[in-house]
Amino acid sequence: MSIENISSNRSSGGWHKQYTHASRTVHCDMRFAIFLPPQASETNKVPVLYWLSGLTCSDENFMQKAGAHRIAAELGIAIVAPDTSPRGENIPDDPDGAYDFGIGAGFYVNATEAPWNRYYHMYDYVVKELPAVIEDHFPVSDIKAISGHSMGGHGALSIALKNSDLYRSVSAFSPIVNPINVPWGQKALSNYLGEDKNAWREYDSCALIKKATSHLPMLIDQGDADQFLHDQLKPENLLQAAEEAGYPLELRMQEGYDHSYYFISSFIEDHVRFHAKHLK
Amino acid sequence: MSIENISSNRSSGGWHKQYTHASRTVHCDMRFAIFLPPQASETNKVPVLYWLSGLTCSDENFMQKAGAHRIAAELGIAIVAPDTSPRGENIPDDPDGAYDFGIGAGFYVNATEAPWNRYYHMYDYVVKELPAVIEDHFPVSDIKAISGHSMGGHGALSIALKNSDLYRSVSAFSPIVNPINVPWGQKALSNYLGEDKNAWREYDSCALIKKATSHLPMLIDQGDADQFLHDQLKPENLLQAAEEAGYPLELRMQEGYDHSYYFISSFIEDHVRFHAKHLK
Repeated sequence: MSIENISSNRSSGGWHKQYTHASRTVHCDMRFAIFLPPQASETNKVPVLYWLSGLTCSDENFMQKAGAHRIAAELGIAIVAPDTSPRGENIPDDPDGAYDFGIGAGFYVNATEAPWNRYYHMYDYVVKELPAVIEDHFPVSDIKAISGHSMGGHGALSIALKNSDLYRSVSAFSPIVNPINVPWGQKALSNYLGEDKNAWREYDSCALIKKATSHLPMLIDQGDADQFLHDQLKPENLLQAAEEAGYPLELRMQEGYDHSYYFISSFIEDHVRFHAKHLK
Repeated sequence: MSIENISSNRSSGGWHKQYTHASRTVHCDMRFAIFLPPQASETNKVPVLYWLSGLTCSDENFMQKAGAHRIAAELGIAIVAPDTSPRGENIPDDPDGAYDFGIGAGFYVNATEAPWNRYYHMYDYVVKELPAVIEDHFPVSDIKAISGHSMGGHGALSIALKNSDLYRSVSAFSPIVNPINVPWGQKALSNYLGEDKNAWREYDSCALIKKATSHLPMLIDQGDADQFLHDQLKPENLLQAAEEAGYPLELRMQEGYDHSYYFISSFIEDHVRFHAKHLK
């Protein structure tokens, strides 16, 4: 598994770097970004926080806008940000070029329907291939946490709920918690997975939390002025499912905050410190 | 002087807002952004740090990427970021659409040559019109500092050196300190000001520092891996001019850092704290 470095920037005493590699999971060249804190070395392998971005994003949005490097440098944590879908000229996309499906909108599932099923395996890419690449090429340990925003918050929560043995903690900003019951999720899941709703529930955090047999530390921040709160996000559905399941989670409603990266940069320090406690 | 609000985002306990207004100085609609810290109110007017961006930037780059809101919120300082030039369909631009002259590249001068001289008065816009607009519409005092990056570092230094009564302190990241002697500056100044080099020297920090009669606190950060260091930036020229003039300044060479916003976000906290000391 070779990777190609395409950019390097010194940042907060560490390094921000972008790479591409030929993914055998999603069958195209994939780009990812990594922040390596100054503490990272072959004799001091650091834990990794995986960040999953939202609709339309690439590996760059979080690295450029969240202000997370400073805190990760202080705490000695690497951050890895993959792209949000396979990408390239030969990758099938939404026929209307919509922002909420296809390229930039992989929803962190393994598609089963043609033509998506050859490429759109972002679940396996994030859970299996990418960590193997990261651990093979960088001075990091296999100790991991996961976080994300919006569609990426859905990805982080659903992946953590299905893989509580792989991650120490999970957090999310403005996550889509109940994709089977909201327009963004219904469009994506019906296209990627077909009409069998049993398959959809395998990626629905409200359904998954009821089946969880072990509990990861879970922190969620949600702005109460988020323009997508009532139609697409519905955090109250996850809160209710968690209560029914006896799954402890902290959901913080943040007054006046919207869906933008200004919200993420306002609270990212809390999230990185939350994960750092569990990554030690 | 009316202004129109076009976006609002809660950020770090304060507010990030964008506005447009019809500028009588540059004869077009101008957009600016302001960060208002939570302390700002009509009974508690806060000081303002003006940020001048570099080539190709708008009011958005610094606000989205620098990570400054958190620190400004802690210290009770507003931040104002103007655009880097007049902008719009009727604004004359570089005939080849180059990034280093015309739209996105006003160089914070008052152009005297046609066709630039009707619009490209970014010096007067930043020094006179914009502060009047800001102080008229927001809960801020007239206590000011100024900072910027690259072309905006040139703007901050040259404006502060010419107006030591208006600002309490000045700082810069990777500034163009000697525009009369580097390609970016020579292209811009010859087009905006004509061939009279006496006019150019009115905007050259190395020339201005020798004429300065009072000394503002001055902090400069420069990455030693900056791809523009030797051809366009030449901080050693300012250091030498300052020594000859007996003007105290702190120039910090930062090992391994480049010209990107990752450099700015790595050291912006130092700059905001530096200004806060002098804005009290």
